[in-house]
Amino acid sequence: MQYFSLEDINNLQHLYKINLINSCSGFKSANLIGTKSKKGIENVAVFSSITHIGSNPPILGFFCRPTTVTRDTYENIKKTGVYTINHIHESNFQEAHHTSAKYDSETSEFDKTSLSSEYKKGCFAPFVEYSPIQIEMKFVGEYTIKENNTILVLGEIQGLYINDKLITQDGFINLSEANVATINGLDGYAFPKLKERLAYQRPKT
Amino acid sequence: MQYFSLEDINNLQHLYKINLINSCSGFKSANLIGTKSKKGIENVAVFSSITHIGSNPPILGFFCRPTTVTRDTYENIKKTGVYTINHIHESNFQEAHHTSAKYDSETSEFDKTSLSSEYKKGCFAPFVEYSPIQIEMKFVGEYTIKENNTILVLGEIQGLYINDKLITQDGFINLSEANVATINGLDGYAFPKLKERLAYQRPKT
Repeated sequence: MQYFSLEDINNLQHLYKINLINSCSGFKSANLIGTKSKKGIENVAVFSSITHIGSNPPILGFFCRPTTVTRDTYENIKKTGVYTINHIHESNFQEAHHTSAKYDSETSEFDKTSLSSEYKKGCFAPFVEYSPIQIEMKFVGEYTIKENNTILVLGEIQGLYINDKLITQDGFINLSEANVATINGLDGYAFPKLKERLAYQRPKT
Repeated sequence: MQYFSLEDINNLQHLYKINLINSCSGFKSANLIGTKSKKGIENVAVFSSITHIGSNPPILGFFCRPTTVTRDTYENIKKTGVYTINHIHESNFQEAHHTSAKYDSETSEFDKTSLSSEYKKGCFAPFVEYSPIQIEMKFVGEYTIKENNTILVLGEIQGLYINDKLITQDGFINLSEANVATINGLDGYAFPKLKERLAYQRPKT
């Protein structure tokens, strides 16, 4: 096994370090967050930190650093209270990844990629058209992580749109059938195939 | 597309709801957290919420609900300050999943599964033997999520052990080569194969 102490990690060259630490936690979710400014400028950005926080109420979270390329997403969410989460599909992952480029706030990533915005009843923020799983979110809270000045943004699911053939009888969404991505590190994309669903576990007697 | 409003979701049958909401955020990381109580009882438990928070300093987080089966993990971390994160491998994912069974605090999941503990220099908490990526963590902070009474637990990486053949020249860890799992929902396991690494994106002119 190759070993890196904390001191070794802190002394690594910047790009090596961010590749290493971004891949060491495991596979990540791969989503596009859609928002719109009060002035009407649409924004869409790739995120790999969307995490299930709870089902009752249905809350998802993600981490962002308001000083980086994700600033527009954060500002739009804070000002409008609304955003969408859209799964990245095998057919558009290169386009989705391009949304990580640093465009200014006046430029919509929808105009710089082949991704199209889609509007659904009552939702101010744009969805990503053809995404097999699309979620309307309402901002409900934020926590500043003082250890590194990131922000945990929490939202409550307001509406969930899922391709019909993906939901099984017990509510499980088969993400492999959807051909949605998982992200390895900063830039590696994979499209997993489900191996097995396991049973609910009870203690062995 | 099938549509669920917030009201629809809140009215779903419990199991259907937790399957649906747990799978809607995308693929998740698949890890075993190893801890040991001050009395010396080892604990190991499956987690699907381990998330990269930052690389500088190297911080990972996870969410837990101290009233559930994850209570021993949380208590041990709070009392000893140390834990390990170990990736779930294709050869032991059924055993890893069994750690979700509700054993009492006096019982070690290492005794109820074929998983073996492993100790490395200076680390009080046990690693999971043969895991291709093993991480020594130091507890650095926690945030109570008031929206649903979960806790975000933050730790700093103290040591990183990685199977030699997994690290590429720029620090990227190839998780597919490691045959580590990703989790779909509560109980679906997949072992992704990397499709492509994409380049760093710059704005189109």
